[in-house]
Amino acid sequence: MNTKLDDFLNQAHQLDSADGLAPFRDEFVIADDALLYLDGNSLGRMPKATRQMFGDVLDHQWADRLIRSWGENWYDAPTRIGDKIAPIIGAQPGEVIVGDSTTVNLFKLVTAALSLRPGQTKIISDVLNFPTDLYTIQGVIDLLGQDHELILLPADDGIAISMEAYKAALDDDVALVTFSTPTFKSGYLHEIEAITRLAHDAGSLVLWDFSHGVGSVPIDVTNWGIDFAVGCTYKYLNGGPGSPAFLYVREQHRKEANARPWGWWGHESPFAFDLDYRAAESARQFLVGTPPVLSMLAVEPAVDLVLRAGVDAIREKAMAMGEFFVEMFDAVLAEVGFTLGSPRDPHRRGSHISLRHPEGYRICRVLIEEEQVIPDFREPDNIRLGFAPLYTRYVDCVEAVERLHRVVADRRYEAYDTHRTDIT
Amino acid sequence: MNTKLDDFLNQAHQLDSADGLAPFRDEFVIADDALLYLDGNSLGRMPKATRQMFGDVLDHQWADRLIRSWGENWYDAPTRIGDKIAPIIGAQPGEVIVGDSTTVNLFKLVTAALSLRPGQTKIISDVLNFPTDLYTIQGVIDLLGQDHELILLPADDGIAISMEAYKAALDDDVALVTFSTPTFKSGYLHEIEAITRLAHDAGSLVLWDFSHGVGSVPIDVTNWGIDFAVGCTYKYLNGGPGSPAFLYVREQHRKEANARPWGWWGHESPFAFDLDYRAAESARQFLVGTPPVLSMLAVEPAVDLVLRAGVDAIREKAMAMGEFFVEMFDAVLAEVGFTLGSPRDPHRRGSHISLRHPEGYRICRVLIEEEQVIPDFREPDNIRLGFAPLYTRYVDCVEAVERLHRVVADRRYEAYDTHRTDIT
Repeated sequence: MNTKLDDFLNQAHQLDSADGLAPFRDEFVIADDALLYLDGNSLGRMPKATRQMFGDVLDHQWADRLIRSWGENWYDAPTRIGDKIAPIIGAQPGEVIVGDSTTVNLFKLVTAALSLRPGQTKIISDVLNFPTDLYTIQGVIDLLGQDHELILLPADDGIAISMEAYKAALDDDVALVTFSTPTFKSGYLHEIEAITRLAHDAGSLVLWDFSHGVGSVPIDVTNWGIDFAVGCTYKYLNGGPGSPAFLYVREQHRKEANARPWGWWGHESPFAFDLDYRAAESARQFLVGTPPVLSMLAVEPAVDLVLRAGVDAIREKAMAMGEFFVEMFDAVLAEVGFTLGSPRDPHRRGSHISLRHPEGYRICRVLIEEEQVIPDFREPDNIRLGFAPLYTRYVDCVEAVERLHRVVADRRYEAYDTHRTDIT
Repeated sequence: MNTKLDDFLNQAHQLDSADGLAPFRDEFVIADDALLYLDGNSLGRMPKATRQMFGDVLDHQWADRLIRSWGENWYDAPTRIGDKIAPIIGAQPGEVIVGDSTTVNLFKLVTAALSLRPGQTKIISDVLNFPTDLYTIQGVIDLLGQDHELILLPADDGIAISMEAYKAALDDDVALVTFSTPTFKSGYLHEIEAITRLAHDAGSLVLWDFSHGVGSVPIDVTNWGIDFAVGCTYKYLNGGPGSPAFLYVREQHRKEANARPWGWWGHESPFAFDLDYRAAESARQFLVGTPPVLSMLAVEPAVDLVLRAGVDAIREKAMAMGEFFVEMFDAVLAEVGFTLGSPRDPHRRGSHISLRHPEGYRICRVLIEEEQVIPDFREPDNIRLGFAPLYTRYVDCVEAVERLHRVVADRRYEAYDTHRTDIT
């Protein structure tokens, strides 16, 4: 090991020993203990409880109880699991539902927001937003065929936006302000509360996409006055590949907001099979069609784990681990050409860190193919390293730095093609 | 047993012995062999192959391969499984994708159809359509805020529409004609080819929802000239509760049709993370967000089973079983107050039969609670009995008639409340 890392390794052992969340690693199936999995920010590991639950879901609920399981367990799952996610984002019971993809939920909430601000034509976002959020807005504008306009705030360093630029863009023609936070590449955590307050002062509504942080950063939609939120359940919430997203609508908006698409699961009385749509009074109005039950049920034991660990403890460890990693970056990685693609301030950063390097893509290939390290790559030069606190150890971070350093110091990436072939 | 059923029981044994599809029952997990499950038209049984696959999906793909499974197995699943569904509906490879709910897929295709027929304002459907289809259209009209109009053809007997009424409604202002077939209550199978041709002659596009029949009725989207189709995968395709729906777009429409919502999974280059949406040239353009992988993968072994059995053989058995059941209805059930809520002509009927009875709801309760028969109930008086040919036996039909008869003859339903409590 690089001798500069010796002290870090000693520290890491001490930090792991003192880590109150360390026992949670045993709650996950770790199929290959030698693998340094640093992509929990993209796909969380599988909880043992989820694995165990699937026996019951398949053999009892589906195969044995069959259609009766709708009444016994499935029909209420979107709100039951939503109510479990609620405290993780500071929402009230009855304000969160689970179902559909993040993108479809964004579509619902963009249409809902515009329905509440007729005549206001601007939507503010930023170039750091996850593209699907922007595509959703562009699609709504395209569909409405009206004079709506999407304004994207710049991020000169690729890391963060400026609050000055945001304030300058706000005026009383803004219907909606929407950002993803933390951002998917740089991990930048917006000033959520201030942004929300300023938007409200200007007469706009606010929609936050918490996909890249929920379960590992503090969120308080109630006290921060947030109108709408969505988030992904398969990253830090560990709900399984493509598990359905959640959606939050502040209770006061529920009566007036008009989210589209309409569908029978959002109807006040779906089993009356009326010919005319009538939105449910509850948050079920934001459901559309039959949700993907197997994928949805997988979210529940995973969320239970996060609730048991507590978001505050998770956040504390994530920040400490991030700081520890940045110290190693300064000591070892900067000298071989990496730059930090994330904010230095831990309060402005989520639980993943982006390292930028001109050879980022090929470095990733070596790490995956030869070094048993799984980061992910984001164009043009970002290597993302996710520090999911429930199963990542400090020693893993040291080991990852060691391998990152040697791959670059030895120029091992030169053996790889620059042509992009991976999908993650 | 009712003596009038003696001959039917003998026939049933002979029919089961001669049934070429009988061995397929063993391909499904039958947790309780005494249960008469006649609701495969709502939720198909679990294939053993699906149960077995889940070990690999959870332990290998998710827990072990983790994010690498996107490239190894998951990313292509929407088109890979779509290509397997294609021959079941007579589509070409590359025309079908799997993802999202039926309702969300309807929304995509209604917006796509209207994008191809600007200026034409009418949408024709019928009162037999599954309500979510109507809600979707109503929601699109509401969102567009334009002068679109939904015209619903009547069904005087609650069973079928008249082709005369359809022809009378068609004019050159019709943008879209859309029906569900077979219909969810009566099982009425529309004259698909004639309806499609007439719509095209009038300058309209056609969208068929095959949810309540796909996998058990013959469908030939290519030769029937169908523009758009959707369908459910958890009924006769046995894909599991809420498994994602499929969507078909005729290849010639793909370039011009503009389906909303837009999302990153429909982008030409999703991992370039461009700020602007650019639809994929392939049918992937009809994807939106990350699909629910666990629910989606469950569709594949189930579709494989249908392909192995063959839709023609499935349809042949379904028609024979339906005719056998109608004969028993005439002999035994009509006399205790049941009427037939489905077409008598087997060519105009899908694989379920609706029995109507003023006490339909309470009769269903007795069957489920006391008689080990699972039908389902549809307001106001329909008892639906689904004859899924891959695992339903002729003897099951006789036994179901026996129990239906005795529950009504003995007025056993009188012990039950008329208040609706079930969700199926």
